[in-house]
Amino acid sequence: MELLKALEWRYATKKMNGNVVPQEKIDYILEAARLAPSSSGLQPYQVFVISNKELLEKIKQIGFNQSQITDASHVLVFAAWDGYSLEKIDKVFDRTIAERGLPATQMDDYKKRLWGMYEPLGQEWHATHAAKQAYIAFGLAIAAAAEQQVDATPMEGFIPTELDKLLGLEALGLKSTVILPLGYRDEANDWLVNMKKVRTPKDAFVTEIK
Amino acid sequence: MELLKALEWRYATKKMNGNVVPQEKIDYILEAARLAPSSSGLQPYQVFVISNKELLEKIKQIGFNQSQITDASHVLVFAAWDGYSLEKIDKVFDRTIAERGLPATQMDDYKKRLWGMYEPLGQEWHATHAAKQAYIAFGLAIAAAAEQQVDATPMEGFIPTELDKLLGLEALGLKSTVILPLGYRDEANDWLVNMKKVRTPKDAFVTEIK
Repeated sequence: MELLKALEWRYATKKMNGNVVPQEKIDYILEAARLAPSSSGLQPYQVFVISNKELLEKIKQIGFNQSQITDASHVLVFAAWDGYSLEKIDKVFDRTIAERGLPATQMDDYKKRLWGMYEPLGQEWHATHAAKQAYIAFGLAIAAAAEQQVDATPMEGFIPTELDKLLGLEALGLKSTVILPLGYRDEANDWLVNMKKVRTPKDAFVTEIK
Repeated sequence: MELLKALEWRYATKKMNGNVVPQEKIDYILEAARLAPSSSGLQPYQVFVISNKELLEKIKQIGFNQSQITDASHVLVFAAWDGYSLEKIDKVFDRTIAERGLPATQMDDYKKRLWGMYEPLGQEWHATHAAKQAYIAFGLAIAAAAEQQVDATPMEGFIPTELDKLLGLEALGLKSTVILPLGYRDEANDWLVNMKKVRTPKDAFVTEIK
């Protein structure tokens, strides 16, 4: 399905019917997120794919009781690095060098410049910057789900510190940023399903400077 | 083109050839960004589409002299709100109500709760939150460009305060967040074009909890 048609079809599903999204579609959506671009290619985030029913019940409580969290078959949790470090950057660049068969020192200058820029900005800036990168991957996961005719509800409405605790993210150097329940719309019971999609009109959204 | 194939095809183009992207493709990419979901549907961002050559020269200087900025035919500037206000939220919700033919008071409770949450968080939090939403739209623009076989270079490497000044964004209550040069790869002169795409391996990227 063409992307624009898919984006017209999708909406932030308010009621899901409990049907299970096939694993191959979950894998497709995750692969889109994995292929997302990120600043300096660091991909400072991971994705947790939760289908465990008990865990989803707990997440629902953290998520202001939104029904999609348990009526979805899978919930993706996008968790971003809580900060950059030279060690983390090294690991990514070493992999890039190895996979591309480049000389070991190839990215040393770039790395030095990057860390020279990041280090003084501090961990809070780092975490925010990493979270922003996760939003790009989140966007691609939303696009991939729509293309695959899988419904999804982009959600920021949960208590991140509680979710971090539940998933043990702090010990992994991660912070939950956004979540994406995946499932299928319950057309009979979703108040939003037949409402018009409303967006900023193009003339207010786009400014062309020719 | 299927999304995953498009994402495999795309890369952060390092050298563009100056060919012009047709207006219909630019419009397609902008429409994908316009259809992006955002927190409470506020779409707290706008997109500037710059093809003016003199202006692109100036942006290049602000953008650490990256050649794509002038070898692209169009540069998209994603500019996010510098803060939320009850007035801005009202405007969006009023449009939603009008377009859906709902009673005028339909979203009053939701709006009250939303502003009750946002107001105490302060303008810096607002601006960061708005910028994160812009990254979702940015992700969809990247996906749409790839689907249309238009090359793009996602860029944070520019001085936002300088770009804000150049485009007069402050007076519009906006802050530049990310930019996206759009054009076509110069295969003969792009060092990255034939390099392997490197990403975090799936087993390090995804954690399944069943």
